[in-house]
Amino acid sequence: MDKVGIAVIGAGYWGPNLVRNVAFNPSTDLRWVCDIQTASAERLTSTFAGARATSDLRQVLDDPDVHAVAIATPAATHAELAIEALTAGKHVLIEKPIAASVGEAEKMIAVAADAGLTLMCDHTYCYSPSVRHIRSVIEQGDLGDILFVDSVRINLGLVQSDVNVLWDLAPHDLSILDHVLPTERAVTAVAATGSDPIGAGQECVGHLSLGLRGGSSAHVHVNWLSPTKVRTMIIGGTDRTLVWDDLNPTQRISIFDRGVDLGSAADDVVQRSRISYRIGDVTSPALPDTEALSAVIDELVAAVRGEREPRTGGTSGLRVLQILEASDTSLRTGGVSVDVMLAEDQR
Amino acid sequence: MDKVGIAVIGAGYWGPNLVRNVAFNPSTDLRWVCDIQTASAERLTSTFAGARATSDLRQVLDDPDVHAVAIATPAATHAELAIEALTAGKHVLIEKPIAASVGEAEKMIAVAADAGLTLMCDHTYCYSPSVRHIRSVIEQGDLGDILFVDSVRINLGLVQSDVNVLWDLAPHDLSILDHVLPTERAVTAVAATGSDPIGAGQECVGHLSLGLRGGSSAHVHVNWLSPTKVRTMIIGGTDRTLVWDDLNPTQRISIFDRGVDLGSAADDVVQRSRISYRIGDVTSPALPDTEALSAVIDELVAAVRGEREPRTGGTSGLRVLQILEASDTSLRTGGVSVDVMLAEDQR
Amino acid sequence: MDKVGIAVIGAGYWGPNLVRNVAFNPSTDLRWVCDIQTASAERLTSTFAGARATSDLRQVLDDPDVHAVAIATPAATHAELAIEALTAGKHVLIEKPIAASVGEAEKMIAVAADAGLTLMCDHTYCYSPSVRHIRSVIEQGDLGDILFVDSVRINLGLVQSDVNVLWDLAPHDLSILDHVLPTERAVTAVAATGSDPIGAGQECVGHLSLGLRGGSSAHVHVNWLSPTKVRTMIIGGTDRTLVWDDLNPTQRISIFDRGVDLGSAADDVVQRSRISYRIGDVTSPALPDTEALSAVIDELVAAVRGEREPRTGGTSGLRVLQILEASDTSLRTGGVSVDVMLAEDQR
Amino acid sequence: MDKVGIAVIGAGYWGPNLVRNVAFNPSTDLRWVCDIQTASAERLTSTFAGARATSDLRQVLDDPDVHAVAIATPAATHAELAIEALTAGKHVLIEKPIAASVGEAEKMIAVAADAGLTLMCDHTYCYSPSVRHIRSVIEQGDLGDILFVDSVRINLGLVQSDVNVLWDLAPHDLSILDHVLPTERAVTAVAATGSDPIGAGQECVGHLSLGLRGGSSAHVHVNWLSPTKVRTMIIGGTDRTLVWDDLNPTQRISIFDRGVDLGSAADDVVQRSRISYRIGDVTSPALPDTEALSAVIDELVAAVRGEREPRTGGTSGLRVLQILEASDTSLRTGGVSVDVMLAEDQR
Repeated sequence: MDKVGIAVIGAGYWGPNLVRNVAFNPSTDLRWVCDIQTASAERLTSTFAGARATSDLRQVLDDPDVHAVAIATPAATHAELAIEALTAGKHVLIEKPIAASVGEAEKMIAVAADAGLTLMCDHTYCYSPSVRHIRSVIEQGDLGDILFVDSVRINLGLVQSDVNVLWDLAPHDLSILDHVLPTERAVTAVAATGSDPIGAGQECVGHLSLGLRGGSSAHVHVNWLSPTKVRTMIIGGTDRTLVWDDLNPTQRISIFDRGVDLGSAADDVVQRSRISYRIGDVTSPALPDTEALSAVIDELVAAVRGEREPRTGGTSGLRVLQILEASDTSLRTGGVSVDVMLAEDQR
Repeated sequence: MDKVGIAVIGAGYWGPNLVRNVAFNPSTDLRWVCDIQTASAERLTSTFAGARATSDLRQVLDDPDVHAVAIATPAATHAELAIEALTAGKHVLIEKPIAASVGEAEKMIAVAADAGLTLMCDHTYCYSPSVRHIRSVIEQGDLGDILFVDSVRINLGLVQSDVNVLWDLAPHDLSILDHVLPTERAVTAVAATGSDPIGAGQECVGHLSLGLRGGSSAHVHVNWLSPTKVRTMIIGGTDRTLVWDDLNPTQRISIFDRGVDLGSAADDVVQRSRISYRIGDVTSPALPDTEALSAVIDELVAAVRGEREPRTGGTSGLRVLQILEASDTSLRTGGVSVDVMLAEDQR
Repeated sequence: MDKVGIAVIGAGYWGPNLVRNVAFNPSTDLRWVCDIQTASAERLTSTFAGARATSDLRQVLDDPDVHAVAIATPAATHAELAIEALTAGKHVLIEKPIAASVGEAEKMIAVAADAGLTLMCDHTYCYSPSVRHIRSVIEQGDLGDILFVDSVRINLGLVQSDVNVLWDLAPHDLSILDHVLPTERAVTAVAATGSDPIGAGQECVGHLSLGLRGGSSAHVHVNWLSPTKVRTMIIGGTDRTLVWDDLNPTQRISIFDRGVDLGSAADDVVQRSRISYRIGDVTSPALPDTEALSAVIDELVAAVRGEREPRTGGTSGLRVLQILEASDTSLRTGGVSVDVMLAEDQR
Repeated sequence: MDKVGIAVIGAGYWGPNLVRNVAFNPSTDLRWVCDIQTASAERLTSTFAGARATSDLRQVLDDPDVHAVAIATPAATHAELAIEALTAGKHVLIEKPIAASVGEAEKMIAVAADAGLTLMCDHTYCYSPSVRHIRSVIEQGDLGDILFVDSVRINLGLVQSDVNVLWDLAPHDLSILDHVLPTERAVTAVAATGSDPIGAGQECVGHLSLGLRGGSSAHVHVNWLSPTKVRTMIIGGTDRTLVWDDLNPTQRISIFDRGVDLGSAADDVVQRSRISYRIGDVTSPALPDTEALSAVIDELVAAVRGEREPRTGGTSGLRVLQILEASDTSLRTGGVSVDVMLAEDQR
């Protein structure tokens, strides 16, 4: 296979970014942009050589030079579109969340497995230089054992009419945690709180308290109403603590050789506690300045060519949904902690 | 009364700050420092003219030139010491938390009321230029109606052997909220989560989700294990949003003329929502660079002289305790939301 | 004229940005990319519908549907290429610096004037939302009289083999000053210092001290060797001071209602000076997040269509060169201040 | 000698800081505060046990328990006061600048040497944890050879009636450079520019371009008129570059393992230069949070006790003056570079 022929389905908010990255990628061929509003699709194709616009999905799926479709439509349509594409023999890259329900996601995964085709989630952040670095730092054991995670993603965001802020924004945090945390620290329980102070009909401010295997915890704060933008994740370990500030382009990641040590010393009346502090240096790695979505397309190409499983396959999207559905249950029951049993990768 | 004679009880962590501010205040006379370890008291008095050290509280309370005592001992001792001082006719300034339990605090308040003496809480932050400004901004209605509050206070902190991180740090956030929020937005319910990933025997990471009257919410994140220090509070209103970053000395407060408007327009299929955004200017007020604790001493002097009730009287400390006790209940019951009925100021 | 047909000459560092912005602009038609290395041009055209690659400038200039050429080649070739294009009846957009010498620039301006064609400098920063705002703030008199300007542009930069850091980077600062300062504060003298501590054969660190009409001054610091990137400009006025931090995306511009007042009071032995301070609020305007180069293309379109003179015409580029040549003289004579008499716009 | 008895001369701007640090230092005994206005001195002594106020210098110098005087009066009075104190057998700590002229400083140094007494400059910054760290980093060769230094110290400052901004602020930068740069990179020449845009009668904005031995350069920008406070120093070396941001309490020092390498490769037509870039990690050392002036008093104590020569002896103050006098010459001659031959330490 020379170039991988790709069609983008959905010309709304995220579609143009997919179109641009497919058009500029040397290994891909942008064949179609498909949207129920043909004019929206045409606005995206007119600039690029060789790309056609359509509102007819059949036309796309009938094109033998289309090897994969990238689906960027509302979540409610994901399952139907993805299954139709897989059935037509196309590989699928799908926006987060993978589907509107756990049941749908499980069906999509099964169809892809049966067809021997790739179902890949566009968990874009997982392909950013920052998250790649975080994953490798944790894998190498530089942080020691993970003690706590705190993720904040607040912004003046587009209040959605169909989903709450947890379903809209937390998939970013949850997919990142899914990607970087070791299996021994997988999520086991979720307590969610949320509020809708503007009467939007949806929670606009949300908090997730996640229990992790082994007694650690993670917390996620998402908020559509904050005029200051904050995107930070703190991952505290027994040896070091990593701070990721995605809005600080000159120093996105800082690794603090600092922490709290639980001493073995006997209790001492004078000492207020047997815990001591390490105050060491801070190191910030040099990171490349590449666009994450460009690496997503590279990963899709590698998967389509059979070189490797995508790092964010369908099951990673399923696990995000499992946590989101549990958070719905928690919200409905006054914030009580709800157990989750996450699906495992079948590799 | 010429100068107000003051004795500081407790020469531990916070005592030296009280001693210094009393010694330098032109309206006060530092008469005694009292600590069970006389040497600790002497280290503080030796520098200052006229101050004496003792380990004998009676000596202090028998001194007719002592008009007020400032108590900076462990919380468990507050009630006994304060009641002894009040009974001896001394006004009392007391560290946070006001006492170890709601019951103790209620008794202290009653004793002070009976004696006609001042019982003032050293809610230091409430006397900082930043919090004073926040209070006046909210009072003047500049933010509009309060929609949400998010407070983060994380740090590599001294893990305590007797109290968890919520009791140690959240009194700061709770006393500030008590001070700046209007009564119509008082706390009505608390859900708390916490974790102890280092096996300290106490929660080292804690989150409070507070329900406020009228459907708004506030969230408090406190953490002893974070090597990055964060002290921010975001107060979102219908008209403007205020961001307080206490660690940014050049711009502690920013007021964003930005927000989300809930339009009255009819639903529109094309529009994703009927909500629109205001992106206006940001304004940062010029604030004086004065030490909050110096203003605390000024307030104590004014109260002792009968000029006015202290802005942070005993009842404000009681309300903080009521929320903390409810958070304990919530922690014990898996994070469930617990109703609180806060005490009202009796003015 | 329907769409403005544009050819981009030069497919090196800046060319791709021009190509992309021309391709995406709804009012322009990307007709050609021309480079002495055809392969470089082809890499840029292959993605875009309707664009052709060539190494033959004549082919471009013979195309009657090319209305304007955008020249992004080394400065030494600017004059020859621009004059050839103007002679062929094409409007010209040219990278900074406009030419390799004042003499060349004057000739280019004369040729354009004779032909009645636009010669526009791509002083990109002048079309950024920040510089547009700065210009309007100064025009409206918000800063009062300009007292001083301090511009810092330091970075780990590409050490050039043919020009020093002043010729490489200072055109940005000088073109911005040319754009925002009123004529009564035009540059009248230049003192330059520079050093080449790495033996690059060119000054890698440079400083310009500019005398402004009326006794004010401006200073420009440019540096290729700094691993920290700084891009700030401070414009101090009698009423307010503006700080532009181009690397702070959340608050690029801050206007300080602060300053120093020269009182009229009689000398006072006690007072150390008759000067007082105003400490007022800081305001940060909301700025759109648009790409400056997109507005450059819009401006070229408007000029080609005869709607208005471009805001950065050839004479603005000439003035930048006059200052750079004077800085060369100053460097050669040990940093002595050299007078300059800037060309005036002929409008 | 048990405690070192100290008198502070001058109760103006800096005096109170000296008084406080002497009073709290366990090795010193605050004996006197002397000011021509007795009331000013009394305001400082009244708080502290054992300290007396006076306007009579003789009373101070006649006190056999005064071992050293700390002089914080206007620079014009330094020489006379210091010589009087030295003649009376007292060690001297003196504020920057050491004197009003090179001649005076030389005389003071000679008198101290003859009397075998300490003459120490209060170059406070040199005792800060940051500058101590910078000095050790350079001494250990971590930066490699020093290529350039850029120091910025701008602020809304107190416009002085007697000295310009260079004499007021640059002594900080010059004393730091004197302290941290190796002798092989000592200052050899000064070019100064300045402006007085507010008609204060003194330069309020100043720039120093310093030639260093071996062809490197340093630049100092000082400014009284900037409402934004900046205090940064960049020290670029062949191996690493250090950035000191004194206003960033959480990360004052960053060491960039980045830089520009001058390759030995043959010229290449395609490559724009034979220079390449290293983009490595950034490291921030953990620094103690101690007050510099406290370490100044410790150093004075050690010198008075004969334990070691002070790190900032009289000659370091003399060298600062030599550069300042050369800057005056440069200012008077239109910014021309003026050679300086710095005094050497006589150790």
